[in-house]
Amino acid sequence: MKLLELYATMKKDVQFIENQLEKSIRCDHELLSETSLHLFKAGGKRLRPVFVLLSGKFGTYDLEKLQHIAVPLEMIHMATLVHDDVIDDANTRRGQLTVKSKWDNKIAMYTGDYLYAKALSIVTQLHNPVIHQVLSKAIVQMCIGELEQLRDFFNTDQTVRNYLLRIRRKTALLIAISCQLGAIAVGAPDKVSAALYRYGYNVGMAFQVRDDLLDLCGTEKQIGKPPGSDMRQGNITLPVLLALQDEQIRGPLLAEIAEIQQQEGKHDASKAIQMIRGSKGLEQAEEMADRYIAKALHALESLPNVKAKKNLTDIAHFVAKRSY
Amino acid sequence: MKLLELYATMKKDVQFIENQLEKSIRCDHELLSETSLHLFKAGGKRLRPVFVLLSGKFGTYDLEKLQHIAVPLEMIHMATLVHDDVIDDANTRRGQLTVKSKWDNKIAMYTGDYLYAKALSIVTQLHNPVIHQVLSKAIVQMCIGELEQLRDFFNTDQTVRNYLLRIRRKTALLIAISCQLGAIAVGAPDKVSAALYRYGYNVGMAFQVRDDLLDLCGTEKQIGKPPGSDMRQGNITLPVLLALQDEQIRGPLLAEIAEIQQQEGKHDASKAIQMIRGSKGLEQAEEMADRYIAKALHALESLPNVKAKKNLTDIAHFVAKRSY
Repeated sequence: MKLLELYATMKKDVQFIENQLEKSIRCDHELLSETSLHLFKAGGKRLRPVFVLLSGKFGTYDLEKLQHIAVPLEMIHMATLVHDDVIDDANTRRGQLTVKSKWDNKIAMYTGDYLYAKALSIVTQLHNPVIHQVLSKAIVQMCIGELEQLRDFFNTDQTVRNYLLRIRRKTALLIAISCQLGAIAVGAPDKVSAALYRYGYNVGMAFQVRDDLLDLCGTEKQIGKPPGSDMRQGNITLPVLLALQDEQIRGPLLAEIAEIQQQEGKHDASKAIQMIRGSKGLEQAEEMADRYIAKALHALESLPNVKAKKNLTDIAHFVAKRSY
Repeated sequence: MKLLELYATMKKDVQFIENQLEKSIRCDHELLSETSLHLFKAGGKRLRPVFVLLSGKFGTYDLEKLQHIAVPLEMIHMATLVHDDVIDDANTRRGQLTVKSKWDNKIAMYTGDYLYAKALSIVTQLHNPVIHQVLSKAIVQMCIGELEQLRDFFNTDQTVRNYLLRIRRKTALLIAISCQLGAIAVGAPDKVSAALYRYGYNVGMAFQVRDDLLDLCGTEKQIGKPPGSDMRQGNITLPVLLALQDEQIRGPLLAEIAEIQQQEGKHDASKAIQMIRGSKGLEQAEEMADRYIAKALHALESLPNVKAKKNLTDIAHFVAKRSY
């Protein structure tokens, strides 16, 4: 099953958000429109808007209101990507040139700043202060996560807890508040928005663990980049940390990672990847992702039986199996 | 008269804001606290908080509320500085190493992101949606201004209007909303906050024109950096644009600027500075700054005669004469 099929029931509304997103980034400034549209056109799963819309079904569904959450959250996601590409020195994303590569780092930095600011200016059209508080606090945490990722590059001494805290900030939080804010915007009860937050948080965690697994197990065709890219950048992910716990593998794997670091990513990562694939790290990481999915599904249980609940369940199962 | 003397009457409250600012950036994360505190400790005139507090005297003065405007506005100012230093490749600011120089560009980028986000999360403690709208729209405009500055580097064909629009976004807007939001936060009437916006806008424009003049006329001791730094970076300011309107000077000045551009700022700017000093550009730019000051004072006229009005008048006169 493809994610798109899950979207089918809400195709019209997702398209509306897509159009509003494009309109919003077209209006202010020529160069910023160009760079932002470049990002926009590279596409993406638009997961965050979908979560906002589905969560909006647990109250008085109101697309007019929900767009002021869905559009900004996707913009914030885009802002983090464009700043990430500066940090990672990435030349392509989703098969397209990155902004930092097509233009330059400086323009990429200001494009990210602009997208953050624009996102917040759209949210202010909703007058519920709780929404602003939730959103701005999440962005603070996301910035901290970004910086921690920098600090943790090539840090093979980091703990699994450390990793989990980082992906919580980097990925799970924005997905969690997509669900939470969608519910809040339509006046759903606090219990409902809190349950949706937990759902989103756990799906987000599973999503990132899966993403990190794919980088080590996927083919170049599946993941759109050579496997082991994370490791070459110094991003030490869960399967690597788990593999390092194996006394047999630890020594040689540390040596390989040190070599990669020394040669600034130019060293072939295939030997390290083989070691990790030969360890229990992959399986253990998969189990952790599954546990997050189970928690996500559990969070849904208390929710009323609207159709969106089935959709959210399907998305959780989809994330559990994702191989793209 | 020094700016500090103007602050004397509100020393206690300015110090309170200073303490709150420090507290706010100390609390989240070790490295971000370090980089932000480094910026904080480099000091600054804290003009924006002072404008917030003085404007707060035109309603029911409430330091508890005003801190949630003053602290974020200074943080946003700090965020723009740290991102500016990345763009300008600046190694020192106010005699201190910049974040990008003491740490690196990546950390500077995330420090800026964090300060923006943290600022917005503090503002959300005030529940007036107008405040959020004014602030987020201003930041969008500021981002556009930053990007335009990039685009306009070494563009000797830009118009004076172009320059004015740029400094409006880059400098005047944040000072304007400091005054406006201070008044809104304490429930001053719309007419009052609008007049204070106009005051702040015009003071801000004069401030930036003066700043650009100082870069060409000041001594290294006065301005804390070698004169002509703007030009070496490619920042074509008002006195330069006005000097270029002189047919006698235009040709040789263009040639000098082209030389500076070609040698990537390593070419001595003293010849270009001499030409500009010999033109009517300086005098005309001074006249423009004076006109902005006159407009700022005019904006104050309609305001009730509280003591802060006298303070704001003094600050305008101070900006008109500033030589630091």
